[in-house]
Parts: sequence; structure tokens; C-alpha cells
Amino acid sequence: MRLSPRHPRYASLRVRGQLARAHASGLVVPEGLIAHGRGEAFDYFLGERTTPSARAAERVAAEWLLAAEHPVVSVNGNVAAIASGEVARLVRAIPHLEVEVNLFHRTGTRARQVASALRAGGVAHVIGVRATARIPGLPSDRARVDRRGIYVADVCLVPLEDGDRAEALRDLGKRVISVDLNPLSRTSQSADLPIVDEVRRALREIARAAERRKRSAAPFAFVPFDRYAALGDALATIDRGLTRAAARRRRPPRRPRAGRRPAPGTPGRSRRTP
Amino acid sequence: MRLSPRHPRYASLRVRGQLARAHASGLVVPEGLIAHGRGEAFDYFLGERTTPSARAAERVAAEWLLAAEHPVVSVNGNVAAIASGEVARLVRAIPHLEVEVNLFHRTGTRARQVASALRAGGVAHVIGVRATARIPGLPSDRARVDRRGIYVADVCLVPLEDGDRAEALRDLGKRVISVDLNPLSRTSQSADLPIVDEVRRALREIARAAERRKRSAAPFAFVPFDRYAALGDALATIDRGLTRAAARRRRPPRRPRAGRRPAPGTPGRSRRTP
Repeated sequence: MRLSPRHPRYASLRVRGQLARAHASGLVVPEGLIAHGRGEAFDYFLGERTTPSARAAERVAAEWLLAAEHPVVSVNGNVAAIASGEVARLVRAIPHLEVEVNLFHRTGTRARQVASALRAGGVAHVIGVRATARIPGLPSDRARVDRRGIYVADVCLVPLEDGDRAEALRDLGKRVISVDLNPLSRTSQSADLPIVDEVRRALREIARAAERRKRSAAPFAFVPFDRYAALGDALATIDRGLTRAAARRRRPPRRPRAGRRPAPGTPGRSRRTP
Repeated sequence: MRLSPRHPRYASLRVRGQLARAHASGLVVPEGLIAHGRGEAFDYFLGERTTPSARAAERVAAEWLLAAEHPVVSVNGNVAAIASGEVARLVRAIPHLEVEVNLFHRTGTRARQVASALRAGGVAHVIGVRATARIPGLPSDRARVDRRGIYVADVCLVPLEDGDRAEALRDLGKRVISVDLNPLSRTSQSADLPIVDEVRRALREIARAAERRKRSAAPFAFVPFDRYAALGDALATIDRGLTRAAARRRRPPRRPRAGRRPAPGTPGRSRRTP
């Protein structure tokens, strides 16, 4: 099916198409497609744009990543499929940021696919294709990380991360910056700095904020962040989005039905309620 | 990954597993997995149970299907994958209900797969494997129906239907009963009788209501249904669910971090904000 750029859902349908193709190649797993759908529902009520609160969080994220000794961004199949270019831009803005392949459903093939999607997006250096260490507190297949990356990181940027992993990283004393559209997910709830925004928008905004920040002479610092306020803002925005959508659709316009009469050979019609 | 029945998300994860397997066989398309994820987000806020308002709508749906001269339930890949047994039960309760294969992304193979999933679920008679008619007002590939089914139906039960098709059926003067977890979707908005409930719960409840209803001697009738009230109720429930979830998680319990000290060889930790 061809898609017109004037379709009201063009952007969203295009990303769906990207994911479906990435799925056909094995890069994205079925669970990743379902997770994307959940995110879509939240983004719809967020208005499909970066909220002022998310933008503020993205600025702090840029500051933390610049302040970090060993920052790592962890990339899974969904992120590689739709946001490899954004990861590349982020690395250009924050050159000491390591990019690590991180798969919930890990196979050697998928790890290599994530790495090559990232390279195609412009990321020169990718680690984690072979896992060389384990983080404690997780089932063995999901504990595998790169000894040069997440294992020694002080700040982990984890877009679209699984809740158990986000918690395990935080329990290790690492600062966790999550990107997740659901402010109620365990990932958002356990992160030190939860960003409630779509992953491409969020990575672009963090990169922009880092580029701006580097122009100032002030030393980078782990400035405090009020995670409760951020999550509360996101929920309030979703709530308003829901109320607004409901009001807008209370009396939806309908195409007229009265003029139509069944012509000979017309498909069946229902008797109307008297 | 093995799944414990005691996992808090067991039911939801089991359905995800069913869909992933059905997807591997080609029965469910990638877009179907994404759509399922969107539904999950809505169901979460509905409390993952049938609301009193949905139950009332399911009772009216049973009445309409019993009153119909030619009722048809249209079944796509997702419905066949997770609710074939429920469709079979519905047909036992309403024996003149035709079951028609209805695919947005139609191929002969997928149509046959839907039919065999339905047969495996206990549905003896399935139509629509070969499309023999078209409904007006839709792109040709999505207009294809069975001349003995949707084409002549007076009442169409369309679980998980695409918005364009739901509107086209309604414009033909058919009574449309939708099952869709999103009360704001075009399908829910255009249906004469929108049921905002999970498909398996909805079909089970319609079947139960039909079984009860048949014990009464009163003639079946197209009793009126207030679709605006039903959609408003669903939105109000989602809104309350959101507020409740937000309140519950305002101060999430966290595993203690204080006692942990980095032992020799322990992965990197972050300097904390003073």
C-alpha cells in the first residue's frame, strides 16, 4: 500500500513501515512491534510532540552525559531500526559516549544486525556485539553486557529499555537516563532521569542541548533532577490529551446516510430501530 | 524464556506469545502486532476487565445479533490468533451468525490460515476465504468480501476492524457492532454499537448474554443504544484508570541502594550529586 505524505497519520505510518521492514529482516522482534504499539498510544495523548517538561529533562540528560566519565547509550533492535541516525548525531555531540548493542532477545545475528544498522546510520564505533561481562541480578541471557561499556559506565542512557534491566542498572549505582513514552512503566519509574518522549525526538533534543551546552565555559555537573515532578508532568499532559480528544470527538461528524436508498443489487441493509 | 503463571503480567504476556507465534506462521501481520500493543495500553487503563458499560453494550450486541436476519462476524488475523475459541462459542449461541474471513492485508494464503485457525478453534463453517463481491467506497484490495456474508449482512460484528472499513459498512446502511479497546478510534467512533473491551472478553460476554436471552420468550428487537454515552463511559474509565495509576506510583517503592558498596571488580558507579 502506497502512503501519501498528506495522510494525517503519515509520520506514524512511516515509522510503522520502517519497523515492519526491520522486523522482516530479523532486526526487530515481534515483542518490539507490540511495544511500539503501546508507545504509540501514549504518544498520541502526549500530542506527538516533545513537552516542555520532556525538553527540560533532555537538557539535564545532555548535561549528565557531558559530565559523565564513562557514558554509554544502549541500543536495542527498535532503536536501531528507527533512530540510528539520531544515535549518530548524539555521538557527534558527545564524542566520549559509547554505543553498546543491548538485546533483550539476544542472538549473535541480531547483535550484528543492530551494529550494522547503527553503522548505516553513521555510528563509527559500536561495542557489545559480543557480550564479555554480566550484570548481577538478572536472568543470565539478559545480563550480558560489554566489559568496556555498560559494565563500567557511570551514566547509562537506555532508550526503550526493559524494566528489570533498568532496575538492575540503577541498583548497581549507575545513573540511569531512560527514554520511554509510558511514564508508568517500570523503566520510567526506576530511572534517575526519566524522559517521557518519543525516542527520535528525545535523542535529537539531547544532541541539540549538548551542542548548545558545549559553547558555555561552565564545567559540566550532575545537576539535580526532580524525577517525580517530571513523571507527574507527563501524566498530567496525557490526562489533558485524553480529555481534549474526548471533547473533540464527543459528536463526531458523520457522512449523511439519509439520501441513500438501496438500488437493485445493493448489498443488504438493516431495518432501522423505529 | 519460560513464563511463570504467577508473573503479574502472565495473561498479557501469554497473549503476546500467542500473537508472536501466529505472526511467525504468517497469520498475524506486523501491523497486527503494533495494533495489539496500542490496545494493551488502553486495556491497562481500563483495568483489564469488562466495565459495566461494556457489559451493557455486549448485552445489546447479543440482542441485535439475535434480531438480525443475516448477522455476520468478520474475523481478521489477530482475532483468529487469539479468539478462535470465543468465535466458536458465539456461533454456538447464535447459530445463524456467519463467520467471514476479513483481511486488511489479504492474500489467499492468509485467508486460508485464518479459516484453519477458526476451524481449529471449533468453528465448523467459515466463509470469505475467496472474496466474491466488493463493498463500495474502499480501495479495491480492502473492499473484497463474500457475497453470502458481509455483502448481504444487515448486522456486522467487526472486532478489531480498520476505521475505513467500519465507516464503509455503516455507510451501506448496515448496523455495525465494533469491538475495539480505543474509544477514540475511527472504528469505535463510527460504529452504531461500539464495544470498548478486549476481544476475547467481549465475545465471551456476548455469547453468554445471547444464551441467557434465548431463554426468554420475548421477540428479539433492535433495541436502541446510546453510543455517545458508551464512548463517554469508556473515556471516563480510562481517565480514572490513569489517575489511579498515577496516584499509586507517585512514590514508587525502591530497592535500597544505600547498603551496597562497590567491591573490588564491581562495575562502575556514578558519582552522586552532593
